[in-house]
Amino acid sequence: MSRTSDIDILVSEVGPRDGLQSVDRTMPTNVKTKWIDALAGAGLREIEVGSFVSPKRLPQMADTGDVVRHAITIDNLNVLALVPNLRGAEAAVSAGTHALTMPVSASRMHSQANIGKTPEEAVAEVSKVDALRRNSAGQAVTLEVGVSTAFGCTMEGPVSEDWVLRLAVSCAEAGADSVGLSDTTGYGNPAQVKRLFTRLHAELGEKAGGAHLHNTRGQGLANVVAALDAGVTTFDSSLGGLGGCPYAPGASGNIVTEDLVYLLESMGLRTGIDIEALIAARPIILEGLPGEAIYGSVPDAGLQLGFVYAGQEVTA
Amino acid sequence: MSRTSDIDILVSEVGPRDGLQSVDRTMPTNVKTKWIDALAGAGLREIEVGSFVSPKRLPQMADTGDVVRHAITIDNLNVLALVPNLRGAEAAVSAGTHALTMPVSASRMHSQANIGKTPEEAVAEVSKVDALRRNSAGQAVTLEVGVSTAFGCTMEGPVSEDWVLRLAVSCAEAGADSVGLSDTTGYGNPAQVKRLFTRLHAELGEKAGGAHLHNTRGQGLANVVAALDAGVTTFDSSLGGLGGCPYAPGASGNIVTEDLVYLLESMGLRTGIDIEALIAARPIILEGLPGEAIYGSVPDAGLQLGFVYAGQEVTA
Repeated sequence: MSRTSDIDILVSEVGPRDGLQSVDRTMPTNVKTKWIDALAGAGLREIEVGSFVSPKRLPQMADTGDVVRHAITIDNLNVLALVPNLRGAEAAVSAGTHALTMPVSASRMHSQANIGKTPEEAVAEVSKVDALRRNSAGQAVTLEVGVSTAFGCTMEGPVSEDWVLRLAVSCAEAGADSVGLSDTTGYGNPAQVKRLFTRLHAELGEKAGGAHLHNTRGQGLANVVAALDAGVTTFDSSLGGLGGCPYAPGASGNIVTEDLVYLLESMGLRTGIDIEALIAARPIILEGLPGEAIYGSVPDAGLQLGFVYAGQEVTA
Repeated sequence: MSRTSDIDILVSEVGPRDGLQSVDRTMPTNVKTKWIDALAGAGLREIEVGSFVSPKRLPQMADTGDVVRHAITIDNLNVLALVPNLRGAEAAVSAGTHALTMPVSASRMHSQANIGKTPEEAVAEVSKVDALRRNSAGQAVTLEVGVSTAFGCTMEGPVSEDWVLRLAVSCAEAGADSVGLSDTTGYGNPAQVKRLFTRLHAELGEKAGGAHLHNTRGQGLANVVAALDAGVTTFDSSLGGLGGCPYAPGASGNIVTEDLVYLLESMGLRTGIDIEALIAARPIILEGLPGEAIYGSVPDAGLQLGFVYAGQEVTA
């Protein structure tokens, strides 16, 4: 987390990981790095650049080591990678990744399907990764956990809120620096988001992490407003909402970075991000994945007359 | 306003007025009435069925009298029509409309462009319409005002919040039963929406009206969450987000009724509306306007496993 005093909210771009792993085709490595350069150039302070998983399972992520080795050369960028287990963490640390994020699913069915482990086994893996990164001499590696399916599961349906909170506490006790909540399935609603993040802050204090929200039913930014109310200051999103939702044709997946940054800046919350530079980066996605569906309202509508952000005003 | 004790939030459908007037083509009268029947059948308690304006200016609305005469035969439906002036109000009352809504624009440039009057002249027209409806023997006619461009104007840019509040008070003093705020241009942000509706409630008390929000930059439902926080209990929306935004190709206009109802019900707020029946009504729009763009995420994604509303649970 490269939070600095000149921003109020950290927008963490997850397109190169969550977006790309939801697309069957593989974006060429040189386009990934060009895209990451453009994102960092637009002012993003943190990017989840890929995941260290089996290339048989997710060939789209097979070059994550190379992508990390490029990304860590960019100034002022916190380079995050997803690791499902100790083996992935070893590869990530070896590549020089600044921060690891581990998914621990609250839904037992999703946990088995996603990483072949029970939630308890996933927490045990967090402990092992914590030990690993503490032993990585001379290299400070941050360890984050995202509790996935925290707001419901496509297989199980509703998920117990008490259980989500207990699991989050277990992850913190297992050594995670921060534990966030993920609406993996786009099931969350603002009342629930506010309630769960309020409880997360009460339980974990400074270890309470960010919100990873999806826009499956168009509720993504409504959930952001609720999370802001609960004190959340880090939000994941993806440029162009890349990746969509494999279960819902036409529905977007991650919330759209362009629309999120617009929302935050319009509310007077500083992100440090140049919205027009974000919009200018969209064609890079299509260069690497020709014809892919991308989403977003602000890119279509543009910034309005008199809109002020980053100290500048939009004029006619 | 047909608010009843069995719902928490009144969703007021404006598609047949705001949606249709933004489309160049004219929906045939028999499709309009079929659509309104379907909307009422889905549980909507209030529909803005058209506007009484010059048919030269808006030929799409030329049959509003006939539409009203049909709509008032539907049980438990509050039939609203937009009237820009006394002449329109006379036609509306004569057709038997239950409630009139008058636009009073906070932006001077928009006011002139939209109704050819200054805001002060528009307020004077509210007084005249109030006198008219008070003299309509035996017919109780409600009079609402929507302060348009309350969150900004495409021509003027930002609009003074103090002025919006003063104008709202003037409209209430001129005789309106309620005064709402309209984000005509999709400029609003959640912080502003919460601030303005909080002030509106403080100034007008029970006369504080609903929120008419657009989704031009994808922020519509985020603004709903903020308005709920400020105590708003009536929201305008349009089925399929019909009408889009003439200034922003690809951007939707009014917030989408299906997504709004989903948001509210997911938060445990009762609307009395059957989401699946709403979704089933979408093809009627395309029957009357073949090929028209319609919007919405819930219609694509469907309701999730375990979602409970109207006393029923979605099962696999």
